[in-house]
Amino acid sequence: MAKEKNIGITVKKSENFSEWFTQIVGPEGAELADVRYGVQGFIVHMPWGFKILRKIYTYLEEEFEKDDHEPFLFPTVIKKENLEREADHAGFAPDVFWVTKAGTKEMDEPVALRPTGETQIYPMYSLWLRTYTQLPYKRYQSRITTFRNEKTTRPFLRGREFMFMESHNMYANHEDVMKQIETDKIIMEKVIGEKLKIPHIFFKRPKWDAFLGADATYVADTLMPDGRRNQMSSTHDLGTNFSKAYNIQFIDKDEQKKYAYQSCFGPGIWRIMAALIGIHGDDQGLVLPFDVSPYQIVIVPIIFKDEEKNKKVMKKCNELKEKLSKKYSVFLDKSNNTSGWKFNQWEMKGVPIRIEVGPKDVEQFQVALKRRTSLEKIFVPDEKLMKTIEEESLNLGKDIDERAKKYFSDNTKEANTLDELKSLLEKHKGFVKVPFCSVERDGEEAAEILKTETQGAYVCGTPMDVNLKEQAEGKKCIITGKPAKHIVYVAKSW
Amino acid sequence: MAKEKNIGITVKKSENFSEWFTQIVGPEGAELADVRYGVQGFIVHMPWGFKILRKIYTYLEEEFEKDDHEPFLFPTVIKKENLEREADHAGFAPDVFWVTKAGTKEMDEPVALRPTGETQIYPMYSLWLRTYTQLPYKRYQSRITTFRNEKTTRPFLRGREFMFMESHNMYANHEDVMKQIETDKIIMEKVIGEKLKIPHIFFKRPKWDAFLGADATYVADTLMPDGRRNQMSSTHDLGTNFSKAYNIQFIDKDEQKKYAYQSCFGPGIWRIMAALIGIHGDDQGLVLPFDVSPYQIVIVPIIFKDEEKNKKVMKKCNELKEKLSKKYSVFLDKSNNTSGWKFNQWEMKGVPIRIEVGPKDVEQFQVALKRRTSLEKIFVPDEKLMKTIEEESLNLGKDIDERAKKYFSDNTKEANTLDELKSLLEKHKGFVKVPFCSVERDGEEAAEILKTETQGAYVCGTPMDVNLKEQAEGKKCIITGKPAKHIVYVAKSW
Repeated sequence: MAKEKNIGITVKKSENFSEWFTQIVGPEGAELADVRYGVQGFIVHMPWGFKILRKIYTYLEEEFEKDDHEPFLFPTVIKKENLEREADHAGFAPDVFWVTKAGTKEMDEPVALRPTGETQIYPMYSLWLRTYTQLPYKRYQSRITTFRNEKTTRPFLRGREFMFMESHNMYANHEDVMKQIETDKIIMEKVIGEKLKIPHIFFKRPKWDAFLGADATYVADTLMPDGRRNQMSSTHDLGTNFSKAYNIQFIDKDEQKKYAYQSCFGPGIWRIMAALIGIHGDDQGLVLPFDVSPYQIVIVPIIFKDEEKNKKVMKKCNELKEKLSKKYSVFLDKSNNTSGWKFNQWEMKGVPIRIEVGPKDVEQFQVALKRRTSLEKIFVPDEKLMKTIEEESLNLGKDIDERAKKYFSDNTKEANTLDELKSLLEKHKGFVKVPFCSVERDGEEAAEILKTETQGAYVCGTPMDVNLKEQAEGKKCIITGKPAKHIVYVAKSW
Repeated sequence: MAKEKNIGITVKKSENFSEWFTQIVGPEGAELADVRYGVQGFIVHMPWGFKILRKIYTYLEEEFEKDDHEPFLFPTVIKKENLEREADHAGFAPDVFWVTKAGTKEMDEPVALRPTGETQIYPMYSLWLRTYTQLPYKRYQSRITTFRNEKTTRPFLRGREFMFMESHNMYANHEDVMKQIETDKIIMEKVIGEKLKIPHIFFKRPKWDAFLGADATYVADTLMPDGRRNQMSSTHDLGTNFSKAYNIQFIDKDEQKKYAYQSCFGPGIWRIMAALIGIHGDDQGLVLPFDVSPYQIVIVPIIFKDEEKNKKVMKKCNELKEKLSKKYSVFLDKSNNTSGWKFNQWEMKGVPIRIEVGPKDVEQFQVALKRRTSLEKIFVPDEKLMKTIEEESLNLGKDIDERAKKYFSDNTKEANTLDELKSLLEKHKGFVKVPFCSVERDGEEAAEILKTETQGAYVCGTPMDVNLKEQAEGKKCIITGKPAKHIVYVAKSW
């Protein structure tokens, strides 16, 4: 009989992360995405991957709406004229895909596939905003894809089409912008930190690395197992740059017309997925936190040749499925595959809890249970099952959390000279904290030298609300030798 | 003080449906969509409209998943070669938008913005399907937009970009195709008929009007108030046409390689929205069924100049909001607008139940309640409020349902000659049932004559599971005079 598919990862994560990642993502791994679509950088999201991504979207949407953001949806294309109206932002143009033909005819005016939302949304904000009573004005669009003509592409890390969501807010003053950025940080902590258990730092990026047209950019960076930073979200303090370019004004309390202050926040759904796969996964496959897994529990019947016994096994499995489904998302694997193949498959897919039921378990009023992060199977009496699942789901969370936090702190080091930095980056990769002269424009040249000297490491910035200035006191910039104003984080980047 | 916006519809639905529809959709109506985006046929979905559309999606997704469809997501673009591989289907090409440039460079191979999913999905099915144990194989993608270069465009009725969802299934035989089409029909009944209360007929389209590349096409048609049919979904029996073009085969039980049978089902989310707006709406605005409205209840505080009394009113409103929010989706309108303006706005938006609280209501332990479909306000003692809301939500459903069903049957007539048909179409528009020679290829010529004679009416087909053959017995085709094989429905079309 033809098999539905072969599964298995043939390399170790610690030895070849890049190949491990490719295999786990693909159709013979956890079936998250298929890159064989035939257009570079445009991939197919397969059901298991799509359902995880949908959960990430749902959790973030819930937080956005609790914070009074209303959902809307803009077109996939943008007018050329609007795309280029903000001078700095026009820098996106070289990366944009253009729709130039309709049927066999050239279009009068080509339109761009959306590379990001500002330039499509703000012309409408100019029509919609009238008075201060509408402020703060919070809107977001979700479950959209955006497009950039990237040279190299990788599922979930860099695509020509990738999953996105973005809020675009307006305020009467700059204090409200800063309050929102604090809230965006908390949203990342709640969803990405607590639910998905992905450790990260909320940085203020150096001035030279801010978003095109923004006054300042804040990001949530995590580390991939190859030691490169993965930027999972960005929040931009746009000041009044865009409201001036797009003429977004409101009548204030004092009857004066004023330009709106703006911020926008974009969790990179793909990037979050890449972190989830890369950081928690192991050599058997994905490892999914309990709240993120499409199935939380999978039931595998252990079938032998005895028809009578098999009936009893299936009866118990069906009853279990019904009972557990009231509280959990449960899958009963009735397929014709062997038990061993099923075990491998569901471990590959990262399902948190596996329950096995064989003829012996029926006789002894028990089940066998294995949590994804444990090496051991345990036998659980039927009457204790609900309680054990509860406990094991918490144990799983603890395992994942501890492992991820240890990994994150093990890969964050310190250096006080360029030589130390270079040797650290060579050995362990990851974040290195170093004294640095400046994160304003006057530090850009030093950052360029750092990048060249380290073969591509970036100054990631300073953590938003941890004051590292005191730690920098008395230290010297590892590049210029000038007194260091900050301790910055340095890492290579995705 | 500048107002956030002006609201109001200036025409009657019965007198000028087209203008009524434009006004109710727009930013000064119910704020469903804004057409001022600047690219023809590409519109902005505003929060109120988007939230209704999201509910429609959610209900359909739930039914798809109950019926064992797994979700996935394909790219927005399609390879040219794949788009044109099925010969009939290549007929889409004149309506397609092409991406030809990346940055400033021409692309080696242009890609099309997806006009529908078959040609993007089936090349992957050819890679994914291996064995009969995978059948039936049911997948769908949702919350996507698709693109066609339509000449004239109208929000929710015809767009160059429009909201879509689609299932694409594979089976071992044709019986399973027909079973799925029955299920698709039931899904439309449950969601579109029962929840959204939109009357419709599930037709088998005449052979000449089937989807490009399909053996047969089944559709859910409703009627818009201008008498034109609105096709809200289509289900295609693709036979093995596409599996042969895209080489989709499986190893059957008998170890033989066979081509898969296929069906696909696309509820037109936009078209369903257009029906919801057009059929239920009235001269005050939208009328939303209870399950579809983003807010089910809106609370309006009636404020006077007495500070002390206002405090008590707001206290009661806040308590009500908290209590009702446990069961319903509730909005408390604290804005500075006048009560009258608020009443108009929430009627315009179609909110099912409005609760008013004034100082007198506080004193008398009551609230005033108005259901969207009733002309009268009623006063409800506090202790009876929960029960009354329950009852009024049912009354609302009944009102909407009865009105829509009456409208649908009033606009379905019968004719036995071409002259009768012409005069009926002129007077009442809507559906007309007529005897007709054939819905197979040999009837196409007669259908063309009918269309010319009636200035654009279509043969919609025969209802899928109502046998109208008996009714046709002894009657003659209104065009050819030959013995009629069927009673068909005729209507002008959107």
